[in-house]
Amino acid sequence: MRSKPIIGITMGDPAGNGSELSIKSLLNENLYEKCRPIIIGDADCMKLSLNMLNLENKIKINPVDSIDKALFQYGIIDVYDLNLVDMNLFTFGKVSAMCGNAAFRFVEKAIELALSNQIDATVTNAINKEAINKAGFNYAGHTEIYAKYTNTDNYTMMLAEGDLRVVHVSTHVSLREACNLVKRDRVLEVIRIANQGCKDLGIKNPKIGVAGLNPHSGENGLFGKEEIEEIQPAIDLALAEGIDIPERRPTPADTIFSKAIGGWYDIVVCMYHDQGHIPVKVKGFVYDRNLQKWKSVAGVNITLGIPIIRVSVDHGTGFDLAGKGISSPDSLNNAIEYAIDMANAR
Amino acid sequence: MRSKPIIGITMGDPAGNGSELSIKSLLNENLYEKCRPIIIGDADCMKLSLNMLNLENKIKINPVDSIDKALFQYGIIDVYDLNLVDMNLFTFGKVSAMCGNAAFRFVEKAIELALSNQIDATVTNAINKEAINKAGFNYAGHTEIYAKYTNTDNYTMMLAEGDLRVVHVSTHVSLREACNLVKRDRVLEVIRIANQGCKDLGIKNPKIGVAGLNPHSGENGLFGKEEIEEIQPAIDLALAEGIDIPERRPTPADTIFSKAIGGWYDIVVCMYHDQGHIPVKVKGFVYDRNLQKWKSVAGVNITLGIPIIRVSVDHGTGFDLAGKGISSPDSLNNAIEYAIDMANAR
Repeated sequence: MRSKPIIGITMGDPAGNGSELSIKSLLNENLYEKCRPIIIGDADCMKLSLNMLNLENKIKINPVDSIDKALFQYGIIDVYDLNLVDMNLFTFGKVSAMCGNAAFRFVEKAIELALSNQIDATVTNAINKEAINKAGFNYAGHTEIYAKYTNTDNYTMMLAEGDLRVVHVSTHVSLREACNLVKRDRVLEVIRIANQGCKDLGIKNPKIGVAGLNPHSGENGLFGKEEIEEIQPAIDLALAEGIDIPERRPTPADTIFSKAIGGWYDIVVCMYHDQGHIPVKVKGFVYDRNLQKWKSVAGVNITLGIPIIRVSVDHGTGFDLAGKGISSPDSLNNAIEYAIDMANAR
Repeated sequence: MRSKPIIGITMGDPAGNGSELSIKSLLNENLYEKCRPIIIGDADCMKLSLNMLNLENKIKINPVDSIDKALFQYGIIDVYDLNLVDMNLFTFGKVSAMCGNAAFRFVEKAIELALSNQIDATVTNAINKEAINKAGFNYAGHTEIYAKYTNTDNYTMMLAEGDLRVVHVSTHVSLREACNLVKRDRVLEVIRIANQGCKDLGIKNPKIGVAGLNPHSGENGLFGKEEIEEIQPAIDLALAEGIDIPERRPTPADTIFSKAIGGWYDIVVCMYHDQGHIPVKVKGFVYDRNLQKWKSVAGVNITLGIPIIRVSVDHGTGFDLAGKGISSPDSLNNAIEYAIDMANAR
């Protein structure tokens, strides 16, 4: 690793708020003390958003076609310019094959640069599934693109909001199917992934919380036996491997996250999608009643198990907000911070 | 209703932190502007906690044996004294039949006073299930006692933390069984209870959010069909009755609570226990890492469907904290505020 990691930030769908968020994140001068950021995207789009934000006198765009031409100076935003957006055809907030193609190519380039060690970590702004499919790329999302282009079969999503980190035994399946997937071997596998994921973040001796599936963790089998038959055996095996699970048993899901936020665990192993997503979003997504807008949208999404570092914003393309200058860069800021930590821990 | 409602606050298990919390809540002079509070409990225990808190020069205890003898003045805590605790046998933090009996009788008395209209609302501190069972009262908790003594069959728990309110389609059943209980008629029933519950709190035109069961509300049937087959039909029937469900469809559980906290809904109908409990506790239970203690424990628990008002703290007896002066009265404060609002809305 270089002294200050190079962080490649994809611009996301050009019609979304990724260019605006990228500029807002790179307005933070301190960031340049900790890393060398470069946007992988479109220089014209970046200039348009710079104008929209009235920052053209303060910030310059430096389009480059290779990493070694980047300046990495505060006040100058380096853009690895793929030049795939025709500004005559461009509109903010609209799904198009042109923008879908560009968004896909930004990701492809980021992966290529990371695999060839030209950058140390990748951070992704949001893409639009419909747009990339219109452009002929049939992927459900970033994670699948990364898996394919890095030849990875076993990968897992970690969600994080500040110090609250969660991984899931299952994600996009029905809740009934999620109950079926709570099996000893899979729970053990996810405990191991959680442990390694924390180490990848630079946490030396991770403390793991393991949530129960049923309310009150089933209250000793009174309502649900998965805790007794599947989760506890997985915990016992993990403990035998030396993994630190302080409570040594499943913790009721309605208290485990308050404890995690309070510092009792570095990560929580969740039994299903919403068990982990609800607390992360309650903590990170804050709506301002008076201003009638989201004042914080702060989670990040980390792909574990792939050979390169990838941290993503935990929100969509913001097509309804794009071009208005009102989007919050909290999530992108957090994603960049996480990527720096992970690059430094390698 | 009287001009300022009389709020009967049960002291909870004498060996727990209920007496300490009651004193701390009644230290707030403003409270006496809004209500007339009276503790239903034991005067000797209250004096012990007053000493422990070094407040014996500031606050006096006024033991009474009927409501009309209460003074309702700030600085004097009226205690409806059942005189059931022998202080020679008393220790903080220990389960005992004596304390279980006392705790049960406080609740019984509170219900009797409310049913006979001598008090306008009841607020309960925590009791210990083991202790009341040791004393010969075989109840799972407060809710069952209230149901029995008020002859109520259909009751539901509402959890609330500030403006975040939730009711549940099911509570203490396995997650698999909870999936089975997501049926149109039950969902409709709980939507109606939610609507009426908000009106009982003084909210004139309640806005209801209805959570999906599956991740992303099943993404149009891709993973789980309960949203299409059970929840949407219930929502349609509720809308036809004039109930205000702004989104007119199930909302994904991982965003509905951020929206509720942001003021989009007055209450969220949850499909299972942890779906509602996780966000309420993430918001209300805050652990202070530096002080290594809970700095806020702020939810309340409201029993809907019974003929009298009952609001409870949303935490246990705190046997590990009792007698130390370090317990937080946040939840009890919130419970009293909720009880006042409900009494005023009658």
